[in-house]
Amino acid sequence: MAKPSIPKGTRDFGPVETARRQYIFGTIQHAFKKYGFAQIETPAMENTETLMGKYGDEGDRLIFKILNSGDYLKKVGDNDLSNRDSQQILRSISEKALRYDLTVPFARFVVQHQNEITFPFKRYQIQPVWRADRPQKGRYREFYQCDADVVGSDSLLYEVELVQIFNEVLANLGIPSFTIKINNRKVLSGIAEVIGEPEKIVDITVAIDKLDKIGKDGVNKELKEKGINDEATAKIQPLIDFTGSTSEKLTFLKELLASSEVGMNGIAELEYIFQTLESLETSGDKSVTDNVELDITLARGLNYYTGAIFEVKANNVSIGSICGGGRYDDLTGVFGAKEKLSGVGISFGADRIYDVLNELNLFPAEVQAHLKVLVINFGEKEALEGMKLVQKLRAKNIASEVYPDAAKMKKQMKYANDKHVPFVVLIGSEELNQGKFTLKNMETGNQEMISAEQLLQAVQA
Amino acid sequence: MAKPSIPKGTRDFGPVETARRQYIFGTIQHAFKKYGFAQIETPAMENTETLMGKYGDEGDRLIFKILNSGDYLKKVGDNDLSNRDSQQILRSISEKALRYDLTVPFARFVVQHQNEITFPFKRYQIQPVWRADRPQKGRYREFYQCDADVVGSDSLLYEVELVQIFNEVLANLGIPSFTIKINNRKVLSGIAEVIGEPEKIVDITVAIDKLDKIGKDGVNKELKEKGINDEATAKIQPLIDFTGSTSEKLTFLKELLASSEVGMNGIAELEYIFQTLESLETSGDKSVTDNVELDITLARGLNYYTGAIFEVKANNVSIGSICGGGRYDDLTGVFGAKEKLSGVGISFGADRIYDVLNELNLFPAEVQAHLKVLVINFGEKEALEGMKLVQKLRAKNIASEVYPDAAKMKKQMKYANDKHVPFVVLIGSEELNQGKFTLKNMETGNQEMISAEQLLQAVQA
Repeated sequence: MAKPSIPKGTRDFGPVETARRQYIFGTIQHAFKKYGFAQIETPAMENTETLMGKYGDEGDRLIFKILNSGDYLKKVGDNDLSNRDSQQILRSISEKALRYDLTVPFARFVVQHQNEITFPFKRYQIQPVWRADRPQKGRYREFYQCDADVVGSDSLLYEVELVQIFNEVLANLGIPSFTIKINNRKVLSGIAEVIGEPEKIVDITVAIDKLDKIGKDGVNKELKEKGINDEATAKIQPLIDFTGSTSEKLTFLKELLASSEVGMNGIAELEYIFQTLESLETSGDKSVTDNVELDITLARGLNYYTGAIFEVKANNVSIGSICGGGRYDDLTGVFGAKEKLSGVGISFGADRIYDVLNELNLFPAEVQAHLKVLVINFGEKEALEGMKLVQKLRAKNIASEVYPDAAKMKKQMKYANDKHVPFVVLIGSEELNQGKFTLKNMETGNQEMISAEQLLQAVQA
Repeated sequence: MAKPSIPKGTRDFGPVETARRQYIFGTIQHAFKKYGFAQIETPAMENTETLMGKYGDEGDRLIFKILNSGDYLKKVGDNDLSNRDSQQILRSISEKALRYDLTVPFARFVVQHQNEITFPFKRYQIQPVWRADRPQKGRYREFYQCDADVVGSDSLLYEVELVQIFNEVLANLGIPSFTIKINNRKVLSGIAEVIGEPEKIVDITVAIDKLDKIGKDGVNKELKEKGINDEATAKIQPLIDFTGSTSEKLTFLKELLASSEVGMNGIAELEYIFQTLESLETSGDKSVTDNVELDITLARGLNYYTGAIFEVKANNVSIGSICGGGRYDDLTGVFGAKEKLSGVGISFGADRIYDVLNELNLFPAEVQAHLKVLVINFGEKEALEGMKLVQKLRAKNIASEVYPDAAKMKKQMKYANDKHVPFVVLIGSEELNQGKFTLKNMETGNQEMISAEQLLQAVQA
């Protein structure tokens, strides 16, 4: 029999990787909860019609379809079969599909349960999604998304909270330097308006968005190709060139966009967010405002976002954006909901955050050392005393165990080393007689014979 | 557009249900960790060949198959298509399937990663599984399994630990009365031996296993139907009738099985487990031995288990077994591993435990109240002070938020009530002037104007 394997683009996570991933998920979840978000879960499978048509043609192709169970061919027409009409046959043999993201299932959830939900609805969701993408470095066919959204309110207070969450999670994970970039779709609309090309907002922002990658000349070339005239392009230049503090940028934008109502609305929103973050900065706290930047070249998800746009990057590592988000106008319109539900949401890219923590060596050692104390087994009587000790340790929430049999010392110590156990306990005849335990610190190599109470204190320290 | 829905047999979990489920998973996980088990995760999709043939024909039919992406028909032969040979076509259009349980993926994991694993390998896994079963009350097409196993050791110390885990988890969940039933496959083999029907062990134990459902006469009738002679059936009667303490049962079994080597081995194993549990009972602890029972009619998973067999039931509720487990001989043989890997494992039925806690009204109120403090919003200036207060509360890990806009008081209080928020904070002009906050206890209705420090203490109490 061939050695078993897993489908390409999927991953097994062993003890160390799982512990590290849970550390990331736990840190994100902890912040979501503190900020009043409630967790929901939706099924891995959705009805195919719930998902199809929501992600464009490319997305439709990348959705994993599940074959109907039982006699799956029974509804297929003879003609479709002989014509090999795969699209038509697909409709007859598959009614369910694996979720492709958490946003569409969330929209479906809100419409389906609208009468049970208290709005504004602050929900978070941490679950895997599946995409039949070609696997490559950093791109998987199964990966987790960690999303928090508020729907049913257009209050900017939520934009402020979501920026605070970004800052708190990344600071708690110990990422030494990161930038939370903020923009506003209305400002981009205003720019398109004042340069006289309001209908070309998408072309303009797509071009500006590439500044990092293709440089200023590249952007100007692309603007020309899209039919933006030289005069309009010239008006954009100061925006592209502009560097300065957030308040300098806002002052500059206010002059530029004075004639655009939508543009001035966007600036007012940005001002509220930045000013409120500044008011909330208290001396004792991790500084949010140092990590926040107004970036008018940020155009992420433009077709979807209608207000604030967020993107977060870890500095000094060559890993793309690690978080994103923004405000949208109408979450549930795709499911025919009459009333427009405005919302704002953010998403943490757990796999990329993992790569950042790994590259910068930021995972705390205790995260992967899942076992804190191993009691060496010298025989049945000693093991029983060990089990009694372990019971006391576990009562104090200390992960501990007795080696299962009186194997050679070398083998038991190898087990301890392989598992990075920080403390080993030895119970021999001397210890039995005195009712004591020898505690060995595996890092320093020190060992001492002490009482159970002293041992509890030593390993908790 | 029709109101959106989800596939039958699957479930959405809203905030309250998710919080309750996470409480159960968290309690189980907490115990697994303390006992030195390390978490792993495997992909939702496995290669079809990994799963097929592992669960019998019925199981094979209930595995959800995933359609190949892209032009899924391209490998299908014309003949197979025109013959509607669904089995043959299935092989050409689907290479992946959703996992059906956690045991087979775990076995696959152990074989695939055997060189990276430190044995004995104590792993736990809490993930969903999918089965195309006909949905009915309490049976779903997507549900979680919570499994802990140790492989690579036949030490009975692990049986003891797993019983302790059962006891600790169920006690921590507050289940007032439950029974951990223990049996041993070797004792059942011994019984079959001494009554002269060694080859009919399965028939005998399947019949005995039904004692609860069909009664003593039913069992005897079934034994007769299976060709067990009257003399042998007579020998079994005392076993069926027998009630008494564990030590009385063991004494009785020792006499009965004196001539059976395998039977006496089974008794020795049971004795070790019960005696060790008794030695570990210390006055301060929740009593394990009161909850443990030797039940020789327990024959669960007989085709698989080779030593200890466990089953747990909550008493005084009409819900089936909530946990199970046992020792097995050869986890990885199905994947062609040369060396036999003995192991022992347990599984918690999270959905059934949910039903028990729900029926007995045992979910702690704080589990579902995800928001502890809501600050009422009376306007921009007041809201900013509220946000500053909330920042202090969140720094103490208290889930809290400011209502997003200055809506009518009635609407804001309805929001607080719908979310079962225990504390509401009011900040009006009087509070602004004095730098204080009015804290309203939503349960008692009491309210008082206090400082931020006093408020922090009051909501933490």
